[in-house]
Amino acid sequence: MNDFKWSKTEKKIARVAFDKAYQRECSDLIEKICTKAEEITEPDNIWRFHDFLTNKRDEIDEKYDYRYSKLILVFARLVKDGWMDLNDLKGLAENKIDRIESLIDLWND
Amino acid sequence: MNDFKWSKTEKKIARVAFDKAYQRECSDLIEKICTKAEEITEPDNIWRFHDFLTNKRDEIDEKYDYRYSKLILVFARLVKDGWMDLNDLKGLAENKIDRIESLIDLWND
Repeated sequence: MNDFKWSKTEKKIARVAFDKAYQRECSDLIEKICTKAEEITEPDNIWRFHDFLTNKRDEIDEKYDYRYSKLILVFARLVKDGWMDLNDLKGLAENKIDRIESLIDLWND
Repeated sequence: MNDFKWSKTEKKIARVAFDKAYQRECSDLIEKICTKAEEITEPDNIWRFHDFLTNKRDEIDEKYDYRYSKLILVFARLVKDGWMDLNDLKGLAENKIDRIESLIDLWND
């Protein structure tokens, strides 16, 4: 994953796409938080709700890794999980898009 | 705090009072969770909300310590903080109530 060079333009596109996916996933999480909060009726539910949030935070922290050496893998995962659209990556070099698509295909098999 | 003996009746009273305080504090926390969840509008709010819940969980875990050697101190703190009413402890030996009240006085000074 380390062998790609990122031009200035590509870095800009990557940053915008990355931030957009992060916002999308967080907006979805905010909705889930509100729904789950309303369902809390007893103490045990509080701690399960907290566990849910802890896991989500860990998952998001681990997933949104903005190192250029990791970005292809990060983007492939985000597209696969529906937080990023391939259209958001328009303007990246074809070999990068190809690598992202082939990773997604690999995971979907 | 270690020098009190707890009769069977006192143990029952203590358990009921303890559980009642825990329920009271958790009900209050559930209300706070719902209010705070509705106020989340952006990613940073999620993580602050999670920090709030983590701190509350740690605080509650540490506070609700049902060891007879700790119970006088636990009860004094719960009464002081408004989660337990001295009336909930009716039936405990006078020296226990006196110790609880003197601890509260000490903290309030």
